[in-house]
Amino acid sequence: MEKPLKNTTSISIMKINKAGRSRAVASVAREFMFTIFLNGKELVTIMCSPENMKELTAGFLFSEGLIRSKEDIKKLDIDEWMGTARVETSGDTTTDSRFFSKRLLASGCGGSATFYDLSDAAALRIESGLTVPAGEVLRLANVFQHGSELYRTTHGVHSAALCEGGKIIVFFEDIGRHNAIDKIFGCCLLDDLPTKDRIIVTSGRVSSEILQKIAKRGIPIVVSISAPTDLGVKIAEKLGITLIGLVRGGKMNVYCHESRVT
Amino acid sequence: MEKPLKNTTSISIMKINKAGRSRAVASVAREFMFTIFLNGKELVTIMCSPENMKELTAGFLFSEGLIRSKEDIKKLDIDEWMGTARVETSGDTTTDSRFFSKRLLASGCGGSATFYDLSDAAALRIESGLTVPAGEVLRLANVFQHGSELYRTTHGVHSAALCEGGKIIVFFEDIGRHNAIDKIFGCCLLDDLPTKDRIIVTSGRVSSEILQKIAKRGIPIVVSISAPTDLGVKIAEKLGITLIGLVRGGKMNVYCHESRVT
Repeated sequence: MEKPLKNTTSISIMKINKAGRSRAVASVAREFMFTIFLNGKELVTIMCSPENMKELTAGFLFSEGLIRSKEDIKKLDIDEWMGTARVETSGDTTTDSRFFSKRLLASGCGGSATFYDLSDAAALRIESGLTVPAGEVLRLANVFQHGSELYRTTHGVHSAALCEGGKIIVFFEDIGRHNAIDKIFGCCLLDDLPTKDRIIVTSGRVSSEILQKIAKRGIPIVVSISAPTDLGVKIAEKLGITLIGLVRGGKMNVYCHESRVT
Repeated sequence: MEKPLKNTTSISIMKINKAGRSRAVASVAREFMFTIFLNGKELVTIMCSPENMKELTAGFLFSEGLIRSKEDIKKLDIDEWMGTARVETSGDTTTDSRFFSKRLLASGCGGSATFYDLSDAAALRIESGLTVPAGEVLRLANVFQHGSELYRTTHGVHSAALCEGGKIIVFFEDIGRHNAIDKIFGCCLLDDLPTKDRIIVTSGRVSSEILQKIAKRGIPIVVSISAPTDLGVKIAEKLGITLIGLVRGGKMNVYCHESRVT
Protein backbone atom coordinates (compact mmCIF):
# COMPACT_ATOMS: atom_id res chain seq x y z
CA MET A 1 0.00 0.00 0.00
CA GLU A 2 3.01 2.29 -0.57
CA LYS A 3 2.15 5.54 -2.31
CA PRO A 4 3.61 5.97 -5.76
CA LEU A 5 5.35 9.32 -6.20
CA LYS A 6 5.92 9.38 -9.91
CA ASN A 7 2.18 9.20 -10.57
CA THR A 8 1.80 12.83 -9.49
CA THR A 9 3.62 16.06 -10.19
CA SER A 10 3.62 19.49 -8.52
CA ILE A 11 2.43 22.60 -10.30
CA SER A 12 1.98 26.22 -9.30
CA ILE A 13 -1.68 27.25 -9.03
CA MET A 14 -3.87 30.08 -7.73
CA LYS A 15 -6.10 29.07 -4.80
CA ILE A 16 -9.28 31.10 -4.42
CA ASN A 17 -11.63 31.05 -1.43
CA LYS A 18 -13.72 33.55 0.52
CA ALA A 19 -10.61 34.99 2.14
CA GLY A 20 -9.12 35.86 -1.24
CA ARG A 21 -6.53 34.41 -3.55
CA SER A 22 -3.06 33.05 -2.96
CA ARG A 23 -0.43 31.23 -4.96
CA ALA A 24 0.08 27.62 -3.95
CA VAL A 25 1.63 24.39 -5.13
CA ALA A 26 -0.80 21.63 -6.07
CA SER A 27 -0.10 18.00 -6.73
CA VAL A 28 -1.85 16.71 -9.87
CA ALA A 29 -2.01 13.25 -11.38
CA ARG A 30 0.34 12.68 -14.27
CA GLU A 31 -1.17 11.48 -17.53
CA PHE A 32 1.23 9.45 -19.58
CA MET A 33 0.94 8.37 -23.20
CA PHE A 34 2.03 4.75 -23.43
CA THR A 35 2.18 2.74 -26.64
CA ILE A 36 2.35 -1.06 -26.79
CA PHE A 37 3.98 -2.69 -29.81
CA LEU A 38 3.10 -6.36 -30.17
CA ASN A 39 5.37 -8.49 -32.34
CA GLY A 40 6.62 -5.39 -34.15
CA LYS A 41 3.20 -3.89 -34.80
CA GLU A 42 1.71 -0.89 -33.03
CA LEU A 43 -1.16 -2.29 -30.96
CA VAL A 44 -2.58 0.48 -28.82
CA THR A 45 -1.85 3.79 -27.11
CA ILE A 46 -3.09 4.00 -23.53
CA MET A 47 -3.34 7.19 -21.46
CA CYS A 48 -2.28 6.09 -17.98
CA SER A 49 -0.35 6.85 -14.82
CA PRO A 50 3.37 6.39 -15.56
CA GLU A 51 4.12 3.62 -13.08
CA ASN A 52 4.03 -0.17 -13.23
CA MET A 53 4.18 -0.26 -17.01
CA LYS A 54 5.20 -3.93 -17.06
CA GLU A 55 2.16 -4.89 -15.03
CA LEU A 56 -0.09 -2.73 -17.20
CA THR A 57 1.27 -4.24 -20.40
CA ALA A 58 0.94 -7.84 -19.25
CA GLY A 59 -2.51 -7.18 -17.77
CA PHE A 60 -3.76 -5.43 -20.88
CA LEU A 61 -2.56 -8.20 -23.19
CA PHE A 62 -4.18 -10.78 -20.94
CA SER A 63 -7.47 -8.89 -20.72
CA GLU A 64 -7.55 -8.60 -24.50
CA GLY A 65 -6.92 -12.31 -24.91
CA LEU A 66 -3.60 -11.73 -26.65
CA ILE A 67 -1.69 -13.76 -24.07
CA ARG A 68 -2.90 -16.56 -21.78
CA SER A 69 0.02 -17.04 -19.45
CA LYS A 70 3.40 -15.64 -18.49
CA GLU A 71 4.97 -18.23 -20.77
CA ASP A 72 3.34 -16.61 -23.82
CA ILE A 73 5.59 -13.57 -23.26
CA LYS A 74 8.95 -14.12 -24.92
CA LYS A 75 10.18 -10.57 -24.41
CA LEU A 76 8.79 -7.51 -22.63
CA ASP A 77 10.87 -4.33 -22.89
CA ILE A 78 9.67 -1.08 -21.37
CA ASP A 79 11.19 2.22 -22.50
CA GLU A 80 9.96 4.72 -19.92
CA TRP A 81 11.56 7.65 -21.71
CA MET A 82 9.83 6.87 -25.00
CA GLY A 83 6.66 5.64 -23.32
CA THR A 84 6.67 2.33 -25.14
CA ALA A 85 6.46 -1.39 -24.48
CA ARG A 86 7.82 -3.81 -27.05
CA VAL A 87 6.40 -7.25 -26.56
CA GLU A 88 7.12 -10.48 -28.35
CA THR A 89 4.73 -13.35 -27.84
CA SER A 90 4.74 -16.95 -28.90
CA GLY A 91 1.33 -16.81 -30.58
CA ASP A 92 0.94 -15.03 -33.91
CA THR A 93 -1.40 -12.42 -32.58
CA THR A 94 -0.79 -9.91 -35.32
CA THR A 95 -3.15 -11.87 -37.51
CA ASP A 96 -5.99 -11.27 -35.07
CA SER A 97 -7.57 -8.74 -37.37
CA ARG A 98 -10.57 -8.35 -35.11
CA PHE A 99 -8.45 -6.80 -32.42
CA PHE A 100 -6.49 -4.60 -34.75
CA SER A 101 -9.52 -3.30 -36.59
CA LYS A 102 -12.30 -3.06 -34.00
CA ARG A 103 -12.76 0.15 -32.10
CA LEU A 104 -14.67 -0.08 -28.87
CA LEU A 105 -14.79 2.94 -26.62
CA ALA A 106 -15.64 1.72 -23.17
CA SER A 107 -17.65 3.92 -20.87
CA GLY A 108 -14.74 4.54 -18.62
CA CYS A 109 -11.07 4.95 -18.54
CA GLY A 110 -9.79 3.39 -21.64
CA GLY A 111 -10.65 -0.26 -21.44
CA SER A 112 -11.75 -2.25 -24.38
CA ALA A 113 -13.38 -5.62 -24.24
CA THR A 114 -12.72 -8.70 -26.23
CA PHE A 115 -16.18 -10.10 -25.98
CA TYR A 116 -19.22 -8.10 -26.83
CA ASP A 117 -21.76 -10.79 -26.45
CA LEU A 118 -22.93 -12.25 -23.17
CA SER A 119 -23.00 -15.67 -24.78
CA ASP A 120 -19.22 -15.43 -25.27
CA ALA A 121 -18.91 -14.82 -21.56
CA ALA A 122 -21.04 -17.75 -20.39
CA ALA A 123 -18.06 -20.09 -20.72
CA LEU A 124 -16.39 -18.09 -17.95
CA ARG A 125 -19.04 -18.93 -15.35
CA ILE A 126 -17.39 -18.90 -11.96
CA GLU A 127 -17.86 -21.75 -9.51
CA SER A 128 -16.47 -20.88 -6.10
CA GLY A 129 -17.38 -21.76 -2.55
CA LEU A 130 -15.73 -18.56 -1.26
CA THR A 131 -17.79 -16.57 1.23
CA VAL A 132 -17.08 -13.29 2.98
CA PRO A 133 -18.64 -11.87 6.18
CA ALA A 134 -20.34 -8.50 5.61
CA GLY A 135 -18.16 -7.01 8.37
CA GLU A 136 -15.03 -8.04 6.49
CA VAL A 137 -16.28 -6.31 3.34
CA LEU A 138 -16.72 -3.09 5.35
CA ARG A 139 -13.29 -3.43 6.95
CA LEU A 140 -11.59 -4.14 3.61
CA ALA A 141 -13.31 -1.17 2.00
CA ASN A 142 -12.20 0.99 4.94
CA VAL A 143 -8.56 -0.01 4.68
CA PHE A 144 -8.73 0.35 0.91
CA GLN A 145 -10.22 3.82 1.12
CA HIS A 146 -7.94 4.89 3.93
CA GLY A 147 -5.03 4.19 1.63
CA SER A 148 -6.51 5.89 -1.38
CA GLU A 149 -9.50 8.14 -0.68
CA LEU A 150 -7.79 11.49 -0.17
CA TYR A 151 -5.28 10.69 -2.84
CA ARG A 152 -7.99 9.60 -5.24
CA THR A 153 -10.24 12.59 -4.60
CA THR A 154 -7.49 15.18 -4.78
CA HIS A 155 -5.57 13.71 -7.65
CA GLY A 156 -8.31 12.09 -9.64
CA VAL A 157 -6.87 8.60 -9.68
CA HIS A 158 -8.53 5.23 -9.28
CA SER A 159 -7.31 2.34 -7.24
CA ALA A 160 -7.83 -1.41 -7.24
CA ALA A 161 -6.75 -4.19 -4.89
CA LEU A 162 -6.62 -7.96 -4.80
CA CYS A 163 -7.56 -9.27 -1.36
CA GLU A 164 -7.62 -12.51 0.59
CA GLY A 165 -8.50 -13.34 4.18
CA GLY A 166 -9.38 -9.72 4.93
CA LYS A 167 -6.00 -8.46 3.73
CA ILE A 168 -4.90 -6.47 0.69
CA ILE A 169 -2.31 -8.48 -1.22
CA VAL A 170 -1.78 -6.27 -4.29
CA PHE A 171 -2.72 -2.60 -4.67
CA PHE A 172 -2.37 -0.30 -7.71
CA GLU A 173 -3.45 3.18 -8.68
CA ASP A 174 -3.99 4.70 -12.10
CA ILE A 175 -5.86 7.60 -13.69
CA GLY A 176 -7.83 4.90 -15.54
CA ARG A 177 -9.96 2.47 -13.56
CA HIS A 178 -9.39 -0.18 -16.26
CA ASN A 179 -5.66 0.33 -16.04
CA ALA A 180 -5.66 -0.16 -12.26
CA ILE A 181 -7.42 -3.53 -12.75
CA ASP A 182 -5.08 -4.50 -15.60
CA LYS A 183 -2.09 -3.70 -13.38
CA ILE A 184 -3.46 -6.02 -10.68
CA PHE A 185 -3.82 -8.95 -13.05
CA GLY A 186 -0.59 -8.14 -14.88
CA CYS A 187 1.22 -8.31 -11.55
CA CYS A 188 -0.48 -11.63 -10.72
CA LEU A 189 0.55 -13.01 -14.10
CA LEU A 190 4.18 -11.87 -13.90
CA ASP A 191 4.64 -12.81 -10.21
CA ASP A 192 2.69 -16.08 -10.36
CA LEU A 193 0.13 -14.92 -7.80
CA PRO A 194 -3.08 -16.95 -7.81
CA THR A 195 -6.38 -15.09 -8.29
CA LYS A 196 -8.77 -17.96 -7.62
CA ASP A 197 -11.04 -17.48 -4.58
CA ARG A 198 -9.77 -13.96 -4.05
CA ILE A 199 -11.63 -10.65 -3.89
CA ILE A 200 -11.20 -7.55 -6.05
CA VAL A 201 -11.85 -4.14 -4.49
CA THR A 202 -12.11 -1.15 -6.82
CA SER A 203 -12.76 2.56 -6.37
CA GLY A 204 -14.39 2.88 -9.74
CA ARG A 205 -17.75 2.21 -11.31
CA VAL A 206 -18.24 -1.44 -12.25
CA SER A 207 -19.21 -1.44 -15.91
CA SER A 208 -19.30 -4.32 -18.36
CA GLU A 209 -15.64 -4.25 -19.36
CA ILE A 210 -14.46 -4.21 -15.74
CA LEU A 211 -16.58 -7.29 -15.05
CA GLN A 212 -15.20 -9.02 -18.12
CA LYS A 213 -11.61 -8.39 -17.07
CA ILE A 214 -12.38 -9.73 -13.60
CA ALA A 215 -14.29 -12.75 -14.87
CA LYS A 216 -11.33 -13.78 -17.01
CA ARG A 217 -9.31 -14.28 -13.82
CA GLY A 218 -12.01 -16.31 -12.10
CA ILE A 219 -12.63 -13.78 -9.30
CA PRO A 220 -15.87 -14.70 -7.44
CA ILE A 221 -16.41 -11.49 -5.40
CA VAL A 222 -16.13 -7.86 -6.54
CA VAL A 223 -16.41 -4.96 -4.10
CA SER A 224 -16.76 -1.41 -5.38
CA ILE A 225 -16.88 1.89 -3.55
CA SER A 226 -18.90 3.19 -6.52
CA ALA A 227 -22.02 1.95 -8.29
CA PRO A 228 -22.29 -0.67 -11.02
CA THR A 229 -24.05 -0.20 -14.35
CA ASP A 230 -27.02 -2.37 -15.33
CA LEU A 231 -24.85 -4.26 -17.81
CA GLY A 232 -22.25 -4.80 -15.09
CA VAL A 233 -24.94 -6.37 -12.89
CA LYS A 234 -26.26 -8.53 -15.76
CA ILE A 235 -22.82 -9.89 -16.56
CA ALA A 236 -22.01 -10.54 -12.88
CA GLU A 237 -25.32 -12.36 -12.48
CA LYS A 238 -24.76 -14.47 -15.57
CA LEU A 239 -21.16 -15.32 -14.69
CA GLY A 240 -21.88 -16.20 -11.05
CA ILE A 241 -19.93 -13.27 -9.59
CA THR A 242 -21.03 -11.66 -6.32
CA LEU A 243 -21.21 -7.92 -7.00
CA ILE A 244 -21.13 -5.57 -4.01
CA GLY A 245 -21.32 -1.81 -4.59
CA LEU A 246 -21.69 1.57 -2.88
CA VAL A 247 -19.80 0.31 0.18
CA ARG A 248 -19.90 3.50 2.25
CA GLY A 249 -20.68 4.52 5.80
CA GLY A 250 -21.23 1.01 7.14
CA LYS A 251 -23.64 0.13 4.33
CA MET A 252 -23.47 -1.84 1.11
CA ASN A 253 -25.63 -3.00 -1.76
CA VAL A 254 -25.32 -6.58 -2.96
CA TYR A 255 -26.48 -6.66 -6.57
CA CYS A 256 -26.35 -10.40 -7.21
CA HIS A 257 -25.22 -13.77 -5.83
CA GLU A 258 -25.64 -12.50 -2.29
CA SER A 259 -25.28 -15.97 -0.77
CA ARG A 260 -21.50 -15.45 -0.70
CA VAL A 261 -21.96 -12.57 1.77
CA THR A 262 -22.43 -14.13 5.23
CA MET B 1 -31.88 20.38 -16.05
CA GLU B 2 -34.60 17.78 -16.42
CA LYS B 3 -33.63 14.33 -15.17
CA PRO B 4 -33.44 11.67 -17.81
CA LEU B 5 -35.32 8.53 -16.86
CA LYS B 6 -34.17 6.14 -19.51
CA ASN B 7 -30.58 6.50 -18.38
CA THR B 8 -31.33 4.42 -15.28
CA THR B 9 -33.15 1.19 -14.55
CA SER B 10 -34.45 -0.43 -11.37
CA ILE B 11 -33.12 -3.71 -10.09
CA SER B 12 -33.76 -5.83 -7.03
CA ILE B 13 -30.84 -5.86 -4.59
CA MET B 14 -29.94 -6.87 -1.04
CA LYS B 15 -29.13 -3.94 1.24
CA ILE B 16 -26.83 -4.75 4.16
CA ASN B 17 -26.08 -2.48 7.12
CA LYS B 18 -25.50 -2.89 10.86
CA ALA B 19 -29.22 -3.51 11.42
CA GLY B 20 -29.20 -6.50 9.09
CA ARG B 21 -30.19 -7.23 5.54
CA SER B 22 -33.27 -6.38 3.54
CA ARG B 23 -34.41 -6.65 -0.05
CA ALA B 24 -34.71 -3.30 -1.82
CA VAL B 25 -35.01 -1.80 -5.27
CA ALA B 26 -32.01 0.16 -6.48
CA SER B 27 -31.73 2.43 -9.45
CA VAL B 28 -28.60 1.81 -11.51
CA ALA B 29 -27.20 3.58 -14.56
CA ARG B 30 -27.89 1.86 -17.84
CA GLU B 31 -24.92 1.04 -20.03
CA PHE B 32 -25.78 0.96 -23.70
CA MET B 33 -23.71 -0.38 -26.59
CA PHE B 34 -23.97 2.08 -29.44
CA THR B 35 -22.32 1.66 -32.84
CA ILE B 36 -21.78 4.48 -35.34
CA PHE B 37 -21.61 3.61 -39.03
CA LEU B 38 -20.07 6.39 -41.12
CA ASN B 39 -20.74 6.32 -44.86
CA GLY B 40 -21.53 2.63 -44.72
CA LYS B 41 -18.48 1.65 -42.68
CA GLU B 42 -18.46 0.65 -39.01
CA LEU B 43 -16.63 3.46 -37.25
CA VAL B 44 -16.80 2.84 -33.52
CA THR B 45 -18.75 1.22 -30.69
CA ILE B 46 -19.30 3.46 -27.68
CA MET B 47 -20.54 2.30 -24.27
CA CYS B 48 -22.83 5.11 -23.14
CA SER B 49 -26.08 6.12 -21.47
CA PRO B 50 -28.94 5.43 -23.89
CA GLU B 51 -30.23 8.97 -24.31
CA ASN B 52 -29.45 11.80 -26.70
CA MET B 53 -27.90 9.54 -29.29
CA LYS B 54 -28.15 12.18 -32.02
CA GLU B 55 -26.23 14.67 -29.94
CA LEU B 56 -23.65 12.04 -29.02
CA THR B 57 -23.15 11.02 -32.65
CA ALA B 58 -22.80 14.58 -33.94
CA GLY B 59 -20.53 15.55 -31.05
CA PHE B 60 -18.34 12.48 -31.44
CA LEU B 61 -17.91 13.00 -35.18
CA PHE B 62 -17.06 16.66 -34.58
CA SER B 63 -14.57 15.87 -31.81
CA GLU B 64 -12.88 13.34 -34.04
CA GLY B 65 -12.61 15.85 -36.87
CA LEU B 66 -14.87 13.79 -39.14
CA ILE B 67 -17.36 16.64 -39.56
CA ARG B 68 -16.82 20.39 -39.22
CA SER B 69 -20.37 21.72 -39.30
CA LYS B 70 -24.00 20.68 -39.35
CA GLU B 71 -23.95 21.01 -43.12
CA ASP B 72 -21.43 18.16 -43.38
CA ILE B 73 -24.14 15.78 -42.15
CA LYS B 74 -26.29 14.63 -45.09
CA LYS B 75 -28.16 12.00 -43.10
CA LEU B 76 -28.25 10.96 -39.45
CA ASP B 77 -30.49 8.00 -38.61
CA ILE B 78 -30.65 6.60 -35.08
CA ASP B 79 -32.01 3.11 -34.48
CA GLU B 80 -32.51 2.95 -30.71
CA TRP B 81 -33.59 -0.67 -30.79
CA MET B 82 -30.49 -1.79 -32.65
CA GLY B 83 -28.25 0.72 -30.90
CA THR B 84 -26.89 2.16 -34.12
CA ALA B 85 -26.38 5.47 -35.86
CA ARG B 86 -26.03 5.54 -39.64
CA VAL B 87 -24.43 8.74 -40.80
CA GLU B 88 -23.74 10.02 -44.26
CA THR B 89 -21.39 12.94 -44.61
CA SER B 90 -20.32 15.07 -47.52
CA GLY B 91 -16.59 14.50 -47.01
CA ASP B 92 -15.05 11.16 -47.93
CA THR B 93 -14.03 10.35 -44.40
CA THR B 94 -13.72 6.63 -44.94
CA THR B 95 -10.34 7.23 -46.52
CA ASP B 96 -9.04 8.70 -43.27
CA SER B 97 -7.02 5.60 -42.54
CA ARG B 98 -5.48 7.20 -39.48
CA PHE B 99 -8.83 7.30 -37.73
CA PHE B 100 -9.86 3.84 -38.79
CA SER B 101 -6.60 2.20 -37.84
CA LYS B 102 -5.36 4.08 -34.76
CA ARG B 103 -6.33 2.81 -31.35
CA LEU B 104 -6.03 5.28 -28.53
CA LEU B 105 -7.45 4.33 -25.17
CA ALA B 106 -8.08 7.53 -23.29
CA SER B 107 -7.70 7.58 -19.54
CA GLY B 108 -11.37 7.99 -18.98
CA CYS B 109 -14.71 7.09 -20.33
CA GLY B 110 -14.12 6.19 -23.87
CA GLY B 111 -12.88 9.26 -25.60
CA SER B 112 -10.26 9.18 -28.24
CA ALA B 113 -8.33 12.14 -29.48
CA THR B 114 -7.51 13.17 -32.98
CA PHE B 115 -4.33 14.99 -32.14
CA TYR B 116 -1.61 13.44 -30.10
CA ASP B 117 0.90 16.19 -30.39
CA LEU B 118 0.70 19.50 -28.61
CA SER B 119 2.04 21.17 -31.74
CA ASP B 120 -1.11 20.07 -33.59
CA ALA B 121 -3.11 21.83 -30.94
CA ALA B 122 -1.30 25.16 -31.03
CA ALA B 123 -3.39 26.29 -34.00
CA LEU B 124 -6.43 26.15 -31.70
CA ARG B 125 -5.12 28.83 -29.32
CA ILE B 126 -8.10 30.62 -27.83
CA GLU B 127 -8.28 34.40 -27.75
CA SER B 128 -11.18 35.56 -25.61
CA GLY B 129 -11.80 38.57 -23.41
CA LEU B 130 -14.35 36.61 -21.35
CA THR B 131 -13.98 36.95 -17.59
CA VAL B 132 -15.94 35.35 -14.75
CA PRO B 133 -16.23 36.49 -11.11
CA ALA B 134 -15.03 33.83 -8.65
CA GLY B 135 -18.42 34.01 -6.92
CA GLU B 136 -20.17 33.12 -10.15
CA VAL B 137 -17.95 30.06 -10.59
CA LEU B 138 -18.99 28.88 -7.10
CA ARG B 139 -22.68 29.56 -7.79
CA LEU B 140 -22.56 27.79 -11.16
CA ALA B 141 -20.82 24.79 -9.62
CA ASN B 142 -23.46 24.73 -6.87
CA VAL B 143 -26.39 24.74 -9.28
CA PHE B 144 -24.62 22.19 -11.45
CA GLN B 145 -23.98 19.88 -8.51
CA HIS B 146 -27.41 20.38 -7.03
CA GLY B 147 -28.83 19.04 -10.27
CA SER B 148 -26.48 16.15 -10.53
CA GLU B 149 -24.53 15.33 -7.37
CA LEU B 150 -26.81 12.77 -5.76
CA TYR B 151 -27.70 11.34 -9.11
CA ARG B 152 -24.08 11.15 -10.13
CA THR B 153 -22.90 9.60 -6.88
CA THR B 154 -25.66 7.03 -6.64
CA HIS B 155 -25.83 6.11 -10.27
CA GLY B 156 -22.26 6.57 -11.34
CA VAL B 157 -22.93 9.00 -14.16
CA HIS B 158 -21.08 12.12 -15.21
CA SER B 159 -22.58 15.44 -16.18
CA ALA B 160 -21.50 18.41 -18.26
CA ALA B 161 -23.03 21.81 -18.91
CA LEU B 162 -22.56 24.77 -21.22
CA CYS B 163 -23.05 28.05 -19.36
CA GLU B 164 -23.32 31.76 -20.04
CA GLY B 165 -24.02 34.74 -17.80
CA GLY B 166 -24.18 32.56 -14.70
CA LYS B 167 -26.83 30.26 -16.22
CA ILE B 168 -26.77 26.70 -17.47
CA ILE B 169 -27.86 26.63 -21.12
CA VAL B 170 -27.33 22.97 -22.00
CA PHE B 171 -26.94 20.04 -19.58
CA PHE B 172 -26.28 16.36 -20.31
CA GLU B 173 -25.48 13.25 -18.34
CA ASP B 174 -23.73 10.06 -19.40
CA ILE B 175 -21.85 7.17 -17.82
CA GLY B 176 -18.83 8.44 -19.79
CA ARG B 177 -17.47 11.90 -19.07
CA HIS B 178 -16.31 12.18 -22.69
CA ASN B 179 -19.78 11.32 -23.89
CA ALA B 180 -21.38 14.02 -21.73
CA ILE B 181 -19.05 16.60 -23.33
CA ASP B 182 -19.68 15.22 -26.82
CA LYS B 183 -23.44 15.47 -26.22
CA ILE B 184 -23.06 19.15 -25.28
CA PHE B 185 -21.19 20.01 -28.45
CA GLY B 186 -23.35 17.74 -30.61
CA CYS B 187 -26.40 19.61 -29.33
CA CYS B 188 -24.73 22.97 -30.08
CA LEU B 189 -23.90 21.78 -33.58
CA LEU B 190 -27.37 20.42 -34.37
CA ASP B 191 -29.27 23.33 -32.76
CA ASP B 192 -26.94 26.10 -33.98
CA LEU B 193 -26.03 27.18 -30.44
CA PRO B 194 -22.85 29.26 -30.26
CA THR B 195 -20.06 28.09 -27.97
CA LYS B 196 -17.75 31.12 -28.22
CA ASP B 197 -17.19 32.99 -24.93
CA ARG B 198 -19.14 30.38 -22.99
CA ILE B 199 -18.11 28.21 -20.05
CA ILE B 200 -18.03 24.43 -19.74
CA VAL B 201 -18.73 22.85 -16.34
CA THR B 202 -17.95 19.16 -15.92
CA SER B 203 -18.20 16.68 -13.06
CA GLY B 204 -15.30 14.65 -14.35
CA ARG B 205 -11.56 14.73 -14.29
CA VAL B 206 -10.09 17.07 -16.92
CA SER B 207 -7.62 14.99 -18.88
CA SER B 208 -5.95 15.73 -22.21
CA GLU B 209 -8.77 14.47 -24.46
CA ILE B 210 -11.41 16.46 -22.59
CA LEU B 211 -9.34 19.61 -23.08
CA GLN B 212 -8.92 18.84 -26.75
CA LYS B 213 -12.66 18.41 -27.28
CA ILE B 214 -13.29 21.69 -25.48
CA ALA B 215 -10.54 23.58 -27.33
CA LYS B 216 -12.04 22.58 -30.67
CA ARG B 217 -15.14 24.58 -29.80
CA GLY B 218 -13.21 27.65 -28.70
CA ILE B 219 -14.31 27.50 -25.05
CA PRO B 220 -12.12 29.88 -22.96
CA ILE B 221 -13.07 28.74 -19.42
CA VAL B 222 -13.43 25.18 -18.06
CA VAL B 223 -14.74 24.48 -14.56
CA SER B 224 -14.45 21.00 -13.07
CA ILE B 225 -15.71 19.59 -9.81
CA SER B 226 -12.82 17.11 -10.06
CA ALA B 227 -9.09 17.50 -10.58
CA PRO B 228 -7.21 17.89 -13.85
CA THR B 229 -4.24 15.78 -14.97
CA ASP B 230 -0.84 17.36 -15.61
CA LEU B 231 -1.34 16.93 -19.36
CA GLY B 232 -4.75 18.59 -19.07
CA VAL B 233 -3.10 21.59 -17.40
CA LYS B 234 -0.30 21.72 -20.01
CA ILE B 235 -2.76 21.72 -22.89
CA ALA B 236 -5.00 24.36 -21.25
CA GLU B 237 -1.95 26.53 -20.62
CA LYS B 238 -0.73 26.19 -24.19
CA LEU B 239 -4.15 26.80 -25.74
CA GLY B 240 -4.99 29.82 -23.59
CA ILE B 241 -7.84 28.11 -21.68
CA THR B 242 -8.59 29.05 -18.08
CA LEU B 243 -8.74 25.79 -16.14
CA ILE B 244 -10.52 25.78 -12.78
CA GLY B 245 -10.73 22.57 -10.78
CA LEU B 246 -11.71 21.05 -7.43
CA VAL B 247 -14.53 23.59 -7.03
CA ARG B 248 -15.89 22.40 -3.69
CA GLY B 249 -16.95 23.93 -0.38
CA GLY B 250 -16.48 27.56 -1.43
CA LYS B 251 -12.96 26.93 -2.72
CA MET B 252 -11.37 26.43 -6.11
CA ASN B 253 -7.99 25.93 -7.74
CA VAL B 254 -7.14 27.90 -10.87
CA TYR B 255 -4.51 25.93 -12.74
CA CYS B 256 -3.71 28.42 -15.52
CA HIS B 257 -4.77 31.68 -17.19
CA GLU B 258 -6.17 32.95 -13.89
CA SER B 259 -6.60 36.52 -15.20
CA ARG B 260 -10.05 35.52 -16.51
CA VAL B 261 -11.22 34.88 -12.92
CA THR B 262 -12.10 38.28 -11.43
